Amino acid sequence: MTSTSDKSANQMWGGRFAAGPDAIMEAINASIGFDQRLAGEDIEGSRAHASMLAATGILTTKDAEAIREGLLTVLSEIEGGTFEFSAALEDIHMNVEARLKQVVGEAAGRLHTARSRNDQVATDFRLWVRSQCDAAIPAIKTLQEALLGQAEAGADWVMPGFTHLQTAQPVTWGHHMLAYVEMLGRDAARFADARARMNESPLGAAALAGTSFPIDREMTAKALGFDRPMANSLDAVSDRDFALEFLSSATICAMHLSRLAEELVIWSSAQFRFVAMSDRFSTGSSIMPQKKNPDAAELIRAKIGRILGANVALLTVMKGLPLAYSKDMQEDKEQVFDAADHLMLALAAMAGMVADMAANRESLAAAAGSGFSTATDLADWLVRALNMPFRDAHHVTGTLVGMAESRGCDLADLSLADMQGVHEAITEDVFSVLTVEASVASRTSYGGTAPVQVRAQIARWRDAHKAGKMAP
Amino acid sequence: MTSTSDKSANQMWGGRFAAGPDAIMEAINASIGFDQRLAGEDIEGSRAHASMLAATGILTTKDAEAIREGLLTVLSEIEGGTFEFSAALEDIHMNVEARLKQVVGEAAGRLHTARSRNDQVATDFRLWVRSQCDAAIPAIKTLQEALLGQAEAGADWVMPGFTHLQTAQPVTWGHHMLAYVEMLGRDAARFADARARMNESPLGAAALAGTSFPIDREMTAKALGFDRPMANSLDAVSDRDFALEFLSSATICAMHLSRLAEELVIWSSAQFRFVAMSDRFSTGSSIMPQKKNPDAAELIRAKIGRILGANVALLTVMKGLPLAYSKDMQEDKEQVFDAADHLMLALAAMAGMVADMAANRESLAAAAGSGFSTATDLADWLVRALNMPFRDAHHVTGTLVGMAESRGCDLADLSLADMQGVHEAITEDVFSVLTVEASVASRTSYGGTAPVQVRAQIARWRDAHKAGKMAP
Amino acid sequence: MTSTSDKSANQMWGGRFAAGPDAIMEAINASIGFDQRLAGEDIEGSRAHASMLAATGILTTKDAEAIREGLLTVLSEIEGGTFEFSAALEDIHMNVEARLKQVVGEAAGRLHTARSRNDQVATDFRLWVRSQCDAAIPAIKTLQEALLGQAEAGADWVMPGFTHLQTAQPVTWGHHMLAYVEMLGRDAARFADARARMNESPLGAAALAGTSFPIDREMTAKALGFDRPMANSLDAVSDRDFALEFLSSATICAMHLSRLAEELVIWSSAQFRFVAMSDRFSTGSSIMPQKKNPDAAELIRAKIGRILGANVALLTVMKGLPLAYSKDMQEDKEQVFDAADHLMLALAAMAGMVADMAANRESLAAAAGSGFSTATDLADWLVRALNMPFRDAHHVTGTLVGMAESRGCDLADLSLADMQGVHEAITEDVFSVLTVEASVASRTSYGGTAPVQVRAQIARWRDAHKAGKMAP
Amino acid sequence: MTSTSDKSANQMWGGRFAAGPDAIMEAINASIGFDQRLAGEDIEGSRAHASMLAATGILTTKDAEAIREGLLTVLSEIEGGTFEFSAALEDIHMNVEARLKQVVGEAAGRLHTARSRNDQVATDFRLWVRSQCDAAIPAIKTLQEALLGQAEAGADWVMPGFTHLQTAQPVTWGHHMLAYVEMLGRDAARFADARARMNESPLGAAALAGTSFPIDREMTAKALGFDRPMANSLDAVSDRDFALEFLSSATICAMHLSRLAEELVIWSSAQFRFVAMSDRFSTGSSIMPQKKNPDAAELIRAKIGRILGANVALLTVMKGLPLAYSKDMQEDKEQVFDAADHLMLALAAMAGMVADMAANRESLAAAAGSGFSTATDLADWLVRALNMPFRDAHHVTGTLVGMAESRGCDLADLSLADMQGVHEAITEDVFSVLTVEASVASRTSYGGTAPVQVRAQIARWRDAHKAGKMAP
Repeated sequence: MTSTSDKSANQMWGGRFAAGPDAIMEAINASIGFDQRLAGEDIEGSRAHASMLAATGILTTKDAEAIREGLLTVLSEIEGGTFEFSAALEDIHMNVEARLKQVVGEAAGRLHTARSRNDQVATDFRLWVRSQCDAAIPAIKTLQEALLGQAEAGADWVMPGFTHLQTAQPVTWGHHMLAYVEMLGRDAARFADARARMNESPLGAAALAGTSFPIDREMTAKALGFDRPMANSLDAVSDRDFALEFLSSATICAMHLSRLAEELVIWSSAQFRFVAMSDRFSTGSSIMPQKKNPDAAELIRAKIGRILGANVALLTVMKGLPLAYSKDMQEDKEQVFDAADHLMLALAAMAGMVADMAANRESLAAAAGSGFSTATDLADWLVRALNMPFRDAHHVTGTLVGMAESRGCDLADLSLADMQGVHEAITEDVFSVLTVEASVASRTSYGGTAPVQVRAQIARWRDAHKAGKMAP
Repeated sequence: MTSTSDKSANQMWGGRFAAGPDAIMEAINASIGFDQRLAGEDIEGSRAHASMLAATGILTTKDAEAIREGLLTVLSEIEGGTFEFSAALEDIHMNVEARLKQVVGEAAGRLHTARSRNDQVATDFRLWVRSQCDAAIPAIKTLQEALLGQAEAGADWVMPGFTHLQTAQPVTWGHHMLAYVEMLGRDAARFADARARMNESPLGAAALAGTSFPIDREMTAKALGFDRPMANSLDAVSDRDFALEFLSSATICAMHLSRLAEELVIWSSAQFRFVAMSDRFSTGSSIMPQKKNPDAAELIRAKIGRILGANVALLTVMKGLPLAYSKDMQEDKEQVFDAADHLMLALAAMAGMVADMAANRESLAAAAGSGFSTATDLADWLVRALNMPFRDAHHVTGTLVGMAESRGCDLADLSLADMQGVHEAITEDVFSVLTVEASVASRTSYGGTAPVQVRAQIARWRDAHKAGKMAP
Repeated sequence: MTSTSDKSANQMWGGRFAAGPDAIMEAINASIGFDQRLAGEDIEGSRAHASMLAATGILTTKDAEAIREGLLTVLSEIEGGTFEFSAALEDIHMNVEARLKQVVGEAAGRLHTARSRNDQVATDFRLWVRSQCDAAIPAIKTLQEALLGQAEAGADWVMPGFTHLQTAQPVTWGHHMLAYVEMLGRDAARFADARARMNESPLGAAALAGTSFPIDREMTAKALGFDRPMANSLDAVSDRDFALEFLSSATICAMHLSRLAEELVIWSSAQFRFVAMSDRFSTGSSIMPQKKNPDAAELIRAKIGRILGANVALLTVMKGLPLAYSKDMQEDKEQVFDAADHLMLALAAMAGMVADMAANRESLAAAAGSGFSTATDLADWLVRALNMPFRDAHHVTGTLVGMAESRGCDLADLSLADMQGVHEAITEDVFSVLTVEASVASRTSYGGTAPVQVRAQIARWRDAHKAGKMAP
Repeated sequence: MTSTSDKSANQMWGGRFAAGPDAIMEAINASIGFDQRLAGEDIEGSRAHASMLAATGILTTKDAEAIREGLLTVLSEIEGGTFEFSAALEDIHMNVEARLKQVVGEAAGRLHTARSRNDQVATDFRLWVRSQCDAAIPAIKTLQEALLGQAEAGADWVMPGFTHLQTAQPVTWGHHMLAYVEMLGRDAARFADARARMNESPLGAAALAGTSFPIDREMTAKALGFDRPMANSLDAVSDRDFALEFLSSATICAMHLSRLAEELVIWSSAQFRFVAMSDRFSTGSSIMPQKKNPDAAELIRAKIGRILGANVALLTVMKGLPLAYSKDMQEDKEQVFDAADHLMLALAAMAGMVADMAANRESLAAAAGSGFSTATDLADWLVRALNMPFRDAHHVTGTLVGMAESRGCDLADLSLADMQGVHEAITEDVFSVLTVEASVASRTSYGGTAPVQVRAQIARWRDAHKAGKMAP
């Protein structure tokens, strides 16, 4: 769990403990194996805290400056890979502080005035999760751009619209791509809402009760880019709903990705041949040389597993925990780290894969016309032209489909006489709605599949993105 | 799964099927056992659709009026309990339409023009989930009011602030109650965000591709209280992220409730005696007559189980589903119904229980002083008065705590000489910070536990609620 | 949550409570809305308990007989639908006992001697879950028989074996069906193991500590078909791992069903046409008359959602519960009821669907030969005939596949000269391994896809089932 | 995700791919970052495969020997930490094989004859999961021994038996400890069942269809300690139910641990003082020097989160995957690794903590007598001595409890006259059942809390363990 192995006695708990924690305890207790990832946030928070302590007269300016400079030294050591993490020092906070003491001497011992590891870790982690919201939004936008690129190229390419994976009605390639642009737009908005809600500073909550030092929480909040300090110190150190809201949003986003990935896997099959993945996003087989596997799509499809798992994990951890801080909450970080990493990876891989993939316009078109896909158009024609109630039109259409099926032909291949044998009022005009192209062109209702609608929606999104907005 | 048992052949799929679905298929396929709950939304949606069809000339005004009136008749039958649901008619949509046909005749067959069950159910379900967001927010507010009532009564009552369920520092009862007010405030905000995001109309998406009829989606959207029509018809019938966002928000809220419930269970124990539940929210035992059990708290604690379970269930269902509608999605409703019902029940029970419960001020105070709870105040005094680095102050305090513990006395019971034996610069003034009351009164940092801070926060929330706002 | 609405005061908690529980409390507390389903088990347990009380002299034989007869009367009322359940009486235990008192008078009050609702409900629920294990096993066997039927009919039908949904190597239809027979065999074994482990009697644990009455737990255990009494009374009333093991087994089984269901959905598509579902297990569309949707397969695919959800729900409920009984555990039953119902439904529907479905031998065969599916056979030939290291053979085969692909032909369509151009030692014999039929026939390793192996495995399963065994 | 960064072109897919996978693809595709953990199993499997290839004449004895020796060299390099893993080589299989080629030359290329990475990874992973079952069982036993030690020391120490965390009836410390011994016994049995079910060899399934080489699957199965080869090659490479069964068993076990951990946290509170954790398994606070926190218990309580999360993750990944191998399944390993590591850690930490902890006999005894804990004994006495129906006895007891409560005394402090005022037939003898010691001593029913029963159960477990059995 951690590669560090410093077995020296733990100095930070003061003089009270006779026996040091043994190996099992260290293994289960130390978090430095993973929370070292918060080093940047920890140091950013400590620097803001030191400035505030000086501004409020709790610390001398000289000590504060020494601390602030010393922390930059520690940060550069960490970033440079020369810092030696110690499991005996448990976590990132104590590792940084211990090294700071070596760098700046006694002043380091004054940094922890008017704070606790409880508000410190809450601040670090919140900054980190906030940064992931900030990263998710442009990553989603990049994927949307790739989809918009596909949509633009094939705004009027016809393909089968499926329900139950059965051909239902023809749609356009651009329209299908845009469906995911919409889903992803809501995903981005969820991250934005989560970010806004979590953007409050826990710093200054101290262990749980606030502090008697005359701190300025507004100042540290502002320095760290938070909108305001949190209004209750117990809440500040106890809750992790910001992490859960991030995970919830990530899970829903991963669900959307799993659906697109599933489609890409199916569409890549020899039976569908709707798309071809680029070599860059495919792999081969060690035993079957002819294979070109959509591995990236499959791996993206799977990511919802671990992200949902992380969500369940943290919810289960938080269930029934009394206030304020409990050590159970140390389990929060690995779940969020893992989920965030894999969401970002999945978004990036999907964006690359979508940008690279080649839709097979001919296969799409051929499939679009099969399966009596314009049957609804026929039913609608009966309603419109003959003023037939829809339910009756549905029945007549069913009879005509049955006739075509038994003859092994398409609806458009039936003769007018055949049709009039089923309903005498049918006229030659009916054939105008039975082609796939006519079908999609006719679906001009707002948000419909007609190319004119698709192009309007692409323009709407392009304009929004150009204007720096998250959505139209 | 459904108590209806009409075995007659299913008429609605037209003439194509030779064999009727048999008993197993009916059992697995029919949704009327649960989706009858959407009757109100279904009829509301159909009435809006009928009006629009008339306004756009697709239907005659006469037919539309007959349909709109007939639907009210059907609704009153359903609400009156006289409607006979049929499993052979599968779902609420077909049950309503079949009855409508009996009531208004052939015109009923024209209602389904330019729509499909796919956009119909998406609309019905979205209206229902939206109503649950609307219900959750005031339910949360009611619970917050109960907590504010408790906070107000005990703004300056001292109690132990725990970490790891060990006494850490004294806090005030009001402060502890307010921590949950804050958590619940974010919960309400999540439901509000979810509501805003989901408030777009799927109606008019038809089966998946939109329609060639000249419908007016803005008109139906407006009639149903939606902000706008959804911009992509495939998305409109395929996605259920609105339901998942509701479930995610409900799960996080249930997590918060589980924590408060856990505290109430622990606080009701003979060992804690911090609170007494009212008889109204307790139960007895069939074998142990003396028992007064906090059953309501336990049941609330458990609700996160089924709500998280519902969340996992729907996410798992949606994983990897190709567009557009797949029958898998029929599994969406029961999960959301159950989660919403139990969230509302849990919120109501918690509000009642909190309003009724009696905090035991004496027990709280007695516990607040135990466990060297003002050790941090001592350490802070050493920093402030002696300009000692915090880390050194921490060490000195640890030694003094060890001394007190070995003598079986409190910190305040040590003599000045004892203290000076550990650190000579300690003065008489130190005793001013060793009482619990002084401790909490001193924690005046923003959001801290001092009664003055607690009262300010109560006022802030009261004002917001009075102003009809969800949060300050 | 419950249709019962008896608002009369709750009589069973004795005289201690001044106020009756109000409506919210009743709504959250009463379990009769769902635990009435345990009526049969409750009465069976009570009858066994009464017999034992008489045998041990705790009850008179006369009272015991009256109770046992009276319980049968109550049972017949419940089964006959004439029993009036009361929410004020909370649960099935009190509903039955209250009615028993009306039927047999004072003796009814003696039935609850030496037991508690805690061991009573643990016994009832365990009996119910055990019965579901007993039901799952033959339901799985029925599905296996349907799969064996398909396997037998098409033991030598060739089809593509997929990895990544790409054609990998040809396999036989029978072989593919048998893969699910194996998975389901392990599912049945899991239910059998769970059943064996849970088959211990909690009855006699009383509230939690056992009893001072001289009861005979072996006797009641035997009467109820349990192997032995549980060895620790606290454990007996506190744990629900038997329910969780049932849910875990159900979830894994549902996962297997979801995979087969996914394949059936894909195989039913117009692009694959590998199978046709019967009309009995398909549905139509309200707007698209030509559709024949594999709804049953989709619904089965979705069932893993609710079953996994139930599993997560109960695990979350049980997390961190102190011993012994907590009211949280009342949430156990609905989850297990729902999961069991839907697992049984899914198994039955899948068995019916598989038995009815028609594989399209021609489509399967046509697909089996595409995609250079015998490339591995070519590589293996190079290893075998030319003693080439596999890695080199793999490279040569890749080159030949590339050549065939660029010419738009199959491997078998390349000339010997073409092949020798890539590797000169290739001989005419190579063509003997390039047909699909030769490929599958050659895979005779144990468990391989060769028809001879498939038929052997079918026989192995048939023999086991005939012998009344769960697996070979 | 992996620290390896070899960017050289991927050589193993043969000559077909023009472009190499780029950085994102490598990041999402490579598994060497985690599957290097399977190195031992991979090499063990390859050595068995090589021996079999020689025994069946597919490989020369000389080549096989070279391979077998070379693999040992590779293994020693990996174990010695000198092996350089390459992400470009994707996974452990290719990393090992590539190095083997450097070590033994061309013969290495013959090792992959008659197998595929699909059966190879299935074998490796199965061996690993099997080893975890083998490790879990003794780890559970060690914890049981620690609990038995506690039980033995306090077989007759009285403590409150709780329901709803309210004092219900007195129990013995030994009895409470034994409840967990029972739960853990079932956990061990679940791992044993899982182990037995998974102990079949996938090796020889090759890619999915078996092979035409005359391999001997029995031989490799035996060499690897498997009971037999798996009977269907598609199943062998497609399913992961063995990993899911391991995770299910681990989740249930973690649930049990979470319950004990919760009790230890509550019992360590100042309000309970039932137990004191040793210093070795406690931690201090950075700001509150007096704290002695039960961190290990809290961390163990939390572990169910990540283990359940892993279970949900893999189930979600497997949902709806068509046969045979899909790349989604690469997500299986990290979940199982993490769950297994943390289960083992939690078991070890709990064993150490339980062995070290000191129960506070006085606190337990004092609490046992509070809360009218012998009320049930009184009710039972009324039934036994006065032949009162239990329901009536329950009512009388409730009245007496109410009387004692209003006087602030215990039941034993009521006078006989007081009691006779409630029910005149009560005699002096009643006082003999009102002490805590009499109460627990009387509960001699099988599995009851009486010390004599507790000691019998301890002996039963000790005997079983001494006999090398998993359970009595």
